[in-house]
Amino acid sequence: MDVGYHSYETEPTHTAGKVITCKAAVAWGPGQPLVIEDVQVAPPQKMEVRVKILFTSICHTDLSSWKGENEAQRAYPRILGHEAAGIVESVGEGVEDMKIGDHVIPFFQGECGTCICCRSQKTNLCQKFGVNPLKSVMVNDGKTRFSTMDGNPIFHFLNTSTFSQYTVLDSACVVKIDTKAPLEKMSLLSCGVSTGVGAAWNVANVQPGSSVAIFGLGAVGLAVAEGARVRGASKIIGVDINPSKFFKGKAVGITEFINPKDLDVPVHEKIGAITEGGVDYSFECVGNLEVLREAFLSTHTGWGLTVLLGIHPSPMLLPLHPMELFNGRQIVGSIFGGFKGKTQLPKLAEQCMCGTLNLDEFITHELPFHNINEAFQLLIEGKSLRCLLHL
Amino acid sequence: MDVGYHSYETEPTHTAGKVITCKAAVAWGPGQPLVIEDVQVAPPQKMEVRVKILFTSICHTDLSSWKGENEAQRAYPRILGHEAAGIVESVGEGVEDMKIGDHVIPFFQGECGTCICCRSQKTNLCQKFGVNPLKSVMVNDGKTRFSTMDGNPIFHFLNTSTFSQYTVLDSACVVKIDTKAPLEKMSLLSCGVSTGVGAAWNVANVQPGSSVAIFGLGAVGLAVAEGARVRGASKIIGVDINPSKFFKGKAVGITEFINPKDLDVPVHEKIGAITEGGVDYSFECVGNLEVLREAFLSTHTGWGLTVLLGIHPSPMLLPLHPMELFNGRQIVGSIFGGFKGKTQLPKLAEQCMCGTLNLDEFITHELPFHNINEAFQLLIEGKSLRCLLHL
Repeated sequence: MDVGYHSYETEPTHTAGKVITCKAAVAWGPGQPLVIEDVQVAPPQKMEVRVKILFTSICHTDLSSWKGENEAQRAYPRILGHEAAGIVESVGEGVEDMKIGDHVIPFFQGECGTCICCRSQKTNLCQKFGVNPLKSVMVNDGKTRFSTMDGNPIFHFLNTSTFSQYTVLDSACVVKIDTKAPLEKMSLLSCGVSTGVGAAWNVANVQPGSSVAIFGLGAVGLAVAEGARVRGASKIIGVDINPSKFFKGKAVGITEFINPKDLDVPVHEKIGAITEGGVDYSFECVGNLEVLREAFLSTHTGWGLTVLLGIHPSPMLLPLHPMELFNGRQIVGSIFGGFKGKTQLPKLAEQCMCGTLNLDEFITHELPFHNINEAFQLLIEGKSLRCLLHL
Repeated sequence: MDVGYHSYETEPTHTAGKVITCKAAVAWGPGQPLVIEDVQVAPPQKMEVRVKILFTSICHTDLSSWKGENEAQRAYPRILGHEAAGIVESVGEGVEDMKIGDHVIPFFQGECGTCICCRSQKTNLCQKFGVNPLKSVMVNDGKTRFSTMDGNPIFHFLNTSTFSQYTVLDSACVVKIDTKAPLEKMSLLSCGVSTGVGAAWNVANVQPGSSVAIFGLGAVGLAVAEGARVRGASKIIGVDINPSKFFKGKAVGITEFINPKDLDVPVHEKIGAITEGGVDYSFECVGNLEVLREAFLSTHTGWGLTVLLGIHPSPMLLPLHPMELFNGRQIVGSIFGGFKGKTQLPKLAEQCMCGTLNLDEFITHELPFHNINEAFQLLIEGKSLRCLLHL
């Protein structure tokens, strides 16, 4: 469907400092269809940025929050969405690295640049603007920048809230990229593709000639495959119970497919048999404890590394015995692929522009913003990888 | 107590190729006192080595096997013991790296040198001679080299069985060291000290100026401290409920002590308060799941690494939630401190000889071999770190 692209030209805005009224998709309760309605967006405060969102897409974290799966994280009304790209409308006091008209990517795992974590090269956590699913207001004043037309607050989500034509972000959660980068694709870097590619590059540090198994071939899993392909992995095994994912997988470098439903042995035994005792790296992109255990056992003893990307419901315990760690297998978690958003996303955008990283396969659908509930359904049914919404 | 030292001079042996009758401490059933009795030790077969054990000591793994804590691992009669030093009495066909009279250290985590793990620099596991608590016979023929005086087999233990004046080892599980190294101290390298020091050096790779917390101040925990001290850690926190361990700890570089019984908050909160949010590395040397969780939470988010050294009963699950790994804390297991015995123990012995590593604090008691049950009791009661038995 051709819904037409926004023009990107930089126009001087006359809205700076004023409340903007625009359309947003508001979640009013768990699992209730989102309502596209007029909302008010306050100007950015100190070290905040107001962004005109041009493209947004939907990730499984939006889905689970929309469903309200974790009661503690519920807050309504709320504007969900965390994968997007847009243009700076105005900046608050003190923001120096972005200005009106800059093309930007928001990201949920902020980078303040000054905390002990941001100063460390070992982590992309941030003590001030790290992702916190319980957070629903801005750090500056503990209030929202969104409100209904009658003045009631609408809560924020994952530092981003991109299901709105305008959103306000802490400047730690948005970064300027090259104006020549195609913004519709850049929205993928806002979460899913960065998460997958970064897990392969930054967290696992996949080596040339190595073997990889990816459990769950959604956008994140396929992005892991793309990352592993770029790194020169020689065997990239994709595991999914949805056979329709396999065709897409080939395009991003997956060399072998396993559908657990077709096997009469556990997946890890199959993988052990087609590799020399297990893969070097496995990636759990599902968020399922049984899958996690299969992913763990699919790696080679002595050095196998399992990277967790899928979101797991708490408070389940890891299905591993302490003594199993003595086999030399390791398991690590990964948020946003280990990328420091401010520092590293601009280069990642360049790598997409020059073709190092191929994002062509990830946007499977495009729809106008007002069809957002249809886009949710496509993801729920496993029909889309990413459905790009045009705001 | 001065029990006198063996002379180390190399004597030509006239026993090569013959069955040797000697004293061994035989375990006849779970928790039953060991019986010092005559046993027969067959000559070494192909790629095996028969070693005259001069010194042996007792480690907690001997204790738990003696108690028969894991039913699947029970095998009687059996010769326990895996921490020792001795002299080669004879070698089997094909053994080229050791000869009669060589001073040697046995080690339970073998190194065949040819399997995929031995060829990798990433692990000290060995597919052929890795430690296997279920194993009780030799690899060559699935039989024992020990037998009672009336010819019934006596089972092996952890590739070593050092509670005997003579033992037979796969050559992959014993390594020649410098003849000038003091053998009584070298027995410590056979397990406990290597396990602790190696966890700090090879597994955690402790960095100068970093902070460390060690849970459990037995010989292994104190060896971690010694390893961290050598590496220049600036803060080494020891945690133990036995206050008598604290005095000894100072000598190996522990800078601060925490007795959980003295606290009204969880240990990890205390550690978080006296560090900048947590230590860089924690070491679990107890084998207790609650302690493991405290050790995990005591590290700094973003980069904290917990190394497991304690042996945990299966099949308990790791007391961690998958999502807790997303805080950037890692947990890894460690066997034999990550040391490849054949390749690395000779250099470790040199480091002890030249004083880089100080082993003075670890041997707290010495007893004649026939007092082995007394030595067990000292360890059970927490009175000894290592009691050296003179055979």
